[in-house]
Amino acid sequence: MRSWEGTEPGQLTPNGQQDIPYRMTSCEKTRKLRGIDWGYNFRGFRWLQAMIFAIEEINNSPNLLPNMTLGYRIFDTCNTVSKALEATLSFVAQNKIDSLNLDEFCNCSEHIPSTIAVVGATGSGVSTAVANLLGLFYIPQVSYASSSRLLSNKNQFKSFLRTIPNDEHQATAMADIIEYFRWNWVGTIAADDDYGRPGIEKFREEAEERDICIDFSELISQYSDEEEIQQVVEVIQNSTARVIVVFSSGPDLEPLIREIVRRNITGKIWLASEAWASSSLIAMPEFFRVIGSTIGFALKAGQIPGFREFLQKVHPKKSANNGFVKEFWEETFNCYLPSESKNSPASASFHKAHEEGLGAGNGTAAFRPPCTGDENITSVETPYMDFTHLRISYNVYLAVYSIAHALQDIYTCTPGKGLFTNGSCADIKKVEAWQVSPLSVLKRA
Amino acid sequence: MRSWEGTEPGQLTPNGQQDIPYRMTSCEKTRKLRGIDWGYNFRGFRWLQAMIFAIEEINNSPNLLPNMTLGYRIFDTCNTVSKALEATLSFVAQNKIDSLNLDEFCNCSEHIPSTIAVVGATGSGVSTAVANLLGLFYIPQVSYASSSRLLSNKNQFKSFLRTIPNDEHQATAMADIIEYFRWNWVGTIAADDDYGRPGIEKFREEAEERDICIDFSELISQYSDEEEIQQVVEVIQNSTARVIVVFSSGPDLEPLIREIVRRNITGKIWLASEAWASSSLIAMPEFFRVIGSTIGFALKAGQIPGFREFLQKVHPKKSANNGFVKEFWEETFNCYLPSESKNSPASASFHKAHEEGLGAGNGTAAFRPPCTGDENITSVETPYMDFTHLRISYNVYLAVYSIAHALQDIYTCTPGKGLFTNGSCADIKKVEAWQVSPLSVLKRA
Repeated sequence: MRSWEGTEPGQLTPNGQQDIPYRMTSCEKTRKLRGIDWGYNFRGFRWLQAMIFAIEEINNSPNLLPNMTLGYRIFDTCNTVSKALEATLSFVAQNKIDSLNLDEFCNCSEHIPSTIAVVGATGSGVSTAVANLLGLFYIPQVSYASSSRLLSNKNQFKSFLRTIPNDEHQATAMADIIEYFRWNWVGTIAADDDYGRPGIEKFREEAEERDICIDFSELISQYSDEEEIQQVVEVIQNSTARVIVVFSSGPDLEPLIREIVRRNITGKIWLASEAWASSSLIAMPEFFRVIGSTIGFALKAGQIPGFREFLQKVHPKKSANNGFVKEFWEETFNCYLPSESKNSPASASFHKAHEEGLGAGNGTAAFRPPCTGDENITSVETPYMDFTHLRISYNVYLAVYSIAHALQDIYTCTPGKGLFTNGSCADIKKVEAWQVSPLSVLKRA
Repeated sequence: MRSWEGTEPGQLTPNGQQDIPYRMTSCEKTRKLRGIDWGYNFRGFRWLQAMIFAIEEINNSPNLLPNMTLGYRIFDTCNTVSKALEATLSFVAQNKIDSLNLDEFCNCSEHIPSTIAVVGATGSGVSTAVANLLGLFYIPQVSYASSSRLLSNKNQFKSFLRTIPNDEHQATAMADIIEYFRWNWVGTIAADDDYGRPGIEKFREEAEERDICIDFSELISQYSDEEEIQQVVEVIQNSTARVIVVFSSGPDLEPLIREIVRRNITGKIWLASEAWASSSLIAMPEFFRVIGSTIGFALKAGQIPGFREFLQKVHPKKSANNGFVKEFWEETFNCYLPSESKNSPASASFHKAHEEGLGAGNGTAAFRPPCTGDENITSVETPYMDFTHLRISYNVYLAVYSIAHALQDIYTCTPGKGLFTNGSCADIKKVEAWQVSPLSVLKRA
């Protein structure tokens, strides 16, 4: 059984609704229908845990938001724009019922909108679509991983912020490295999305300034069909360029690398953008022969004291209504957890998948033994626990804190010195999304 | 007073709600806030008229949908993603109330969703954002002017269709022209959006294959600030390239051309993509000195019998509740129509603008004389009537017809030979958006 990639948008609510993450529908179904079959995203689950960890830490803090409990809901974007928008719609509608022209059919009561901020998404393309929608309602969105230059456009993305630098520096550094080693003959590959295209475009500009020649420029995608992949591989194989610069996420690059491994095309030096340099989908032992000579970019790591212990404490019994934990456990130990509650859509979809034979993957899921619950998380090696530095996880942690500090600003606001008309303050009990300003926090940091 | 650019999305409904176009809010206000001040878009109003003309023709046809009346609503996107999404949300919400998680606050009655298809938008960036949302609900969207390659991605844009070819051919043709004239030294400029970027990228690929050298590549936008514009103009002025290839819409290019005119940079040959080659915003007499040597691309024109007469018949008294007509009349004759009804948001915003002094533009609007209603539309020269060929207007006409023919397919469906399970047919009285398939119509055409 294959599962979700990417996490969030994780949505923060100020009124203490806690621990009710759920899945819109099963990602695996989306995948199977498209013929995509990735491994489980253990890193993504760690990022989700970093979000929960940060929220719990804030909720237990005597200094930060002392009399307030942050609630949250987690949606799985399945790394697709459509799932992400479906999730976003389901909570923005509540925030702006009056602007939806529903008077003719609906009788709606007054209520305080619950969503005050969104954490996510992972990929720039998904974040862009979500940001277009959230911007309408001035709901702050803080991404921990979307680094596309395009998201810096404040005219279009009014309420988008991030804790990751934009890719312009990375593309420049790639050109610097190539210049340093005097590789003046390279090929480029980019994901055909809002991450890959602007990234490689910037690299190209920088390359031109340094008189680096580009032998070929190809676009790829997780949806590329067999023929398209073959075509790109032919170009790589027939090129005399030994250095290949790739701006792509792991999922978009994986089909290409798989084919390159199959044809055993070795002797190339790969220059990896951050998204795939640290992707567990690409760092597979069977790929090393081909991508062993890769120079990759990584973000600056950060410290989250107590996080390792938190990760070790994960257990499906402790989070009975968290479908993500259940799925993580099943994937880690290759077993299945009988569904205890009908309220968990994740389990529901799991069993549905069983029935429909969709969950079978390569035939293993359907024949998994039941989990005992005594499995030991420290006994297995997955990218969940097996990390050397916290990079994206740290960015997730920062994203949550930036929102908490923005709320704290409202909480400690002195009338006359506030951000609103005549220096007035927002009412922390009735705070609305547009009043929350992680920007000032992120700027201060 | 400055007004709307671009039209739609125009939304088709099968239940005969007619003649209720209205504006979400005033575009001019959006513009003023951003410091943008374009002329009124007379061509855009003609496109809107082409849509209404097509619908009326269909409603009067004894053969096409004989027992059915198409209704429509027209929204002004103001050429911005945010306005377009706001409009889209206001009707998709009605189509999918149950998926919006509103149960806690709202009591909604059963109803048949009224929106079965959308015509629009103009620009590719706006269409992309709208398509992301409409795709979730499988609402067919047919654009008449969005030509970006990116919109051909069926994995992302499931229900997007168009009556304009995508830009790949145009970019290739640009390179062919340059090769033909042996101009091997050119500069490129592109709008920094989903129209300009992929367009110029394709040109660049084609140029490389033909050994055409590119001296500079710059990005522009309608939101570029003074400094950015100056920088691009410096690059153009300092370059020895005499040929400049530009992939941009009129609004995105206008600030740059204005500055080039101010500096009197002449002697360049411009290669214009379709969007600005035929933009009335760029074809201004005061610009001719500078852009006189432009080679532009235009679409194949089509015939719409009776359309010229229809255009001449426009009069605010005949469309009292159509705010677009009122505004068009005021702009054409530089007068103002006193508001007759408070139900017309366009007029409301017009007067509001007056009060706030926003409508003053360069000071003329506030001092306009009242319109008499006896003004003669054939006595003035504007791009509304003064056209040589119908290109985009014809595409609008085709877009409406593709939807009507898709409905006709449902109407004339023979049980057992239908498109649905076991050859069943959709119920024309309860037809839903996902059952309407302009794709098969467009493919047949």
